[in-house]
Amino acid sequence: MLAGERYPINDPELVKIRNITRNLVAKYNEIERENVEAQQDLLKQMFGSLGEDVHIEKRLNVDYGMNTTIGNHVFINFNFTLLDPAPVTIGDHVFIGPNVQLYTAHHPLDAETRNQHIGWAEPITIESNVWMGGGVIVLPGVTIGERAVVGAGSVVTKDVPPYHLVAGNPARVMRQLDQ
Amino acid sequence: MLAGERYPINDPELVKIRNITRNLVAKYNEIERENVEAQQDLLKQMFGSLGEDVHIEKRLNVDYGMNTTIGNHVFINFNFTLLDPAPVTIGDHVFIGPNVQLYTAHHPLDAETRNQHIGWAEPITIESNVWMGGGVIVLPGVTIGERAVVGAGSVVTKDVPPYHLVAGNPARVMRQLDQ
Amino acid sequence: MLAGERYPINDPELVKIRNITRNLVAKYNEIERENVEAQQDLLKQMFGSLGEDVHIEKRLNVDYGMNTTIGNHVFINFNFTLLDPAPVTIGDHVFIGPNVQLYTAHHPLDAETRNQHIGWAEPITIESNVWMGGGVIVLPGVTIGERAVVGAGSVVTKDVPPYHLVAGNPARVMRQLDQ
Repeated sequence: MLAGERYPINDPELVKIRNITRNLVAKYNEIERENVEAQQDLLKQMFGSLGEDVHIEKRLNVDYGMNTTIGNHVFINFNFTLLDPAPVTIGDHVFIGPNVQLYTAHHPLDAETRNQHIGWAEPITIESNVWMGGGVIVLPGVTIGERAVVGAGSVVTKDVPPYHLVAGNPARVMRQLDQ
Repeated sequence: MLAGERYPINDPELVKIRNITRNLVAKYNEIERENVEAQQDLLKQMFGSLGEDVHIEKRLNVDYGMNTTIGNHVFINFNFTLLDPAPVTIGDHVFIGPNVQLYTAHHPLDAETRNQHIGWAEPITIESNVWMGGGVIVLPGVTIGERAVVGAGSVVTKDVPPYHLVAGNPARVMRQLDQ
Repeated sequence: MLAGERYPINDPELVKIRNITRNLVAKYNEIERENVEAQQDLLKQMFGSLGEDVHIEKRLNVDYGMNTTIGNHVFINFNFTLLDPAPVTIGDHVFIGPNVQLYTAHHPLDAETRNQHIGWAEPITIESNVWMGGGVIVLPGVTIGERAVVGAGSVVTKDVPPYHLVAGNPARVMRQLDQ
């Protein structure tokens, strides 16, 4: 699954992992905001790796969690959705607006295969110092380059070069940013 | 209302139905994941008809529920939003990604009439073997044809022919799929 | 902050206000639908000003609240997201669909400055008798003119003239509405 191979989505071992994650997420979504330590504990259990100074608003929606690496000084606003059957890597100093959705998961275009619950997935990488506006959707296999800015409501279907501003559906380069 | 006629949105009988549905939905959103039987019971009470092997992630947002028919082997991911004053029909083997929104409800374009809380609605049909990506929005009156695939973040404003891939805002045909 | 000047996002006084708001919002999101009076009390505490006959579905996501003015006869559907470091003004007889997102907050395009948690914000104004469809995103500084209609899934990047219908990403004028 992590290597991009086709896998059975409802494999009992995978279902078990997803259930563990959903229970951690449910706890996170209900925990009191003042209880900073318990929140950090839950995030550490939930994600593959969690840096320092990471703040994630509620509610969080996470598929596996363990396949996701989050760097230092990251802020993620309300209602983040993360489907991570493939690795998701979020660098340092990343700002993620509300309602952002990262989707690494594919289903086959052919319905016969899709209905057998065979999936595959491609990694998403958000490099350091990226800012993603609210409501952004990122598709499987996409890398958002260092210091790029993604306008609110963008649907990012292909790589975003470093130091560029993109926007739209599909997201297109609007302009280069000063280096 | 179901016949597409104009109706008073705040008719006491309709408000009553919506309140019953919202209470069922609130229960569903709070129930423990492990409690499979109770979840299925709530979904059966909530929807007009519910097939076998239907799995709906939380949180769910539903307006009436009773006007919606869901077939067999359907998977609906996180944060599904369903406004169903007109009939919504979801076939068999349908995959619905996170944050998908089905809107059958219209308001009048003329503010005077709109402010009298007069609405009308047009049915949405998702035929069998359809896959809708994350964040897709479907507008009133739309039919998504059999085995069609709707790209993440699409806004579907008109019918999608069977065996086609659409994407964008508004959604446009990207290509035909193999039959 | 309210005047559009740059401000330190993590100023302790601002963090304190946001925490108070988040606690009010958390209460609102959990309160029973039947408890109308308590809901109205919470909304009155949460927002800078709240008119008569305002109905807001759950769940609500609000940043400050105190900078937002809501007129009379306003209906806001499921999962409203409001980032209001700058003033947000919602007129009378406004209809807001599910999953609508109002974003007044900017971050600097330059990563060095952004990483110092310096932000600024521009007001959003939704004039009276406006209808915004589901999933609409509104960007900083935008005014949506009286009786305008914003199609579902639009990303509104600039002012919408009164009596016009806009749609798309970015939202463009589709046609003029009858006066």
